[in-house]
Amino acid sequence: MKLYDGGKAPNPRRVQIFLKEKGIEIEKVQLDINALEPRTEEFAKLNPTKTVPALELDDGTVISETIAICRYFEETHAEPNLFGHSALEKAQIEMWQRRVEFYFLMPIAFAFRHLHPGAITIEPVQVAEWGEMNKGRALNFASVIDSQLQKNAYIAGDRFSVADITLFTACQFMRPARLAIPEECAAFTAWFEKIGARPSAAFD
Amino acid sequence: MKLYDGGKAPNPRRVQIFLKEKGIEIEKVQLDINALEPRTEEFAKLNPTKTVPALELDDGTVISETIAICRYFEETHAEPNLFGHSALEKAQIEMWQRRVEFYFLMPIAFAFRHLHPGAITIEPVQVAEWGEMNKGRALNFASVIDSQLQKNAYIAGDRFSVADITLFTACQFMRPARLAIPEECAAFTAWFEKIGARPSAAFD
Repeated sequence: MKLYDGGKAPNPRRVQIFLKEKGIEIEKVQLDINALEPRTEEFAKLNPTKTVPALELDDGTVISETIAICRYFEETHAEPNLFGHSALEKAQIEMWQRRVEFYFLMPIAFAFRHLHPGAITIEPVQVAEWGEMNKGRALNFASVIDSQLQKNAYIAGDRFSVADITLFTACQFMRPARLAIPEECAAFTAWFEKIGARPSAAFD
Repeated sequence: MKLYDGGKAPNPRRVQIFLKEKGIEIEKVQLDINALEPRTEEFAKLNPTKTVPALELDDGTVISETIAICRYFEETHAEPNLFGHSALEKAQIEMWQRRVEFYFLMPIAFAFRHLHPGAITIEPVQVAEWGEMNKGRALNFASVIDSQLQKNAYIAGDRFSVADITLFTACQFMRPARLAIPEECAAFTAWFEKIGARPSAAFD
């Protein structure tokens, strides 16, 4: 089994943190996203979306998409549970994972890709107006996140889950996107410091 | 239990089809997306993302996000299985569900929202350049889908899954986005006709 990894980019980071939380160590092949290493036709044979992370199993089967890779490991390594136990908890973790992905991580990624001069390699046609619009969307959603974290220790409830991993990597991606957690979001800021202190959050 | 539904829009449709495949009937409250009914502050108390579908359980707990709602019903009504049985099948269905969502449904939605004059209500600042770019992305990914459907009866493998539901609703959303499955994608076109013939695909 082999993980095609992508350094410090948010999606590779999500799988890296997930594996550390599970205590799983596997072989990794680092691809340089900025050098467009996942965009070759050779890599497209492994993963037609030309993205990392991608997991190659021993029989050659490839699983791509961050959350699909995480779910594979959740199923093969049940503890610590990161996707929920009961039907309700599974649904709530999935809901928050997706809310954070669609309303926070993605707007931050669009802001980075369409506004940062260094992102021109991965996003050759930058649409500044779209980038600016997404900055606003990310900051608006920060207040929804803060509100949830005023009532709950973790984003999907009272324990750490895969949704916290998505949120944490999104927060770390705010700096290159020239964004920051708004000052008034005290619960959100405290949560970010708490998650950052977990051993899994350390860079290799 | 009550489903806040949204007519023929793609995400409401996904849950509608999923429930029909499962044989589940529940109370529905129709909200008019074009009249911005989910965008009120009152509805935001139920779902802070101001989107439908949203499922309200009998104790008042709300689950939003299409796939989180589907997963809740998958857990409470195991058969027919639509998210996979084994770790590998679960990961492959999740992978294709997400590939279709991110590389096909979302570009189609962006094309519609940023180019269609009628979408100005839900997307008050339309960025035409972004819409055009996404038309191209959706059409490019159609060939990846066609390639997968040349080798498999369904998008995630040899049986119908939640990933087919996402893909089918995305295809139906192509027309308002002024897109069509490319003529050369014969396997994809045949699959679309096959899924459209399922009883679950009929409009109420």
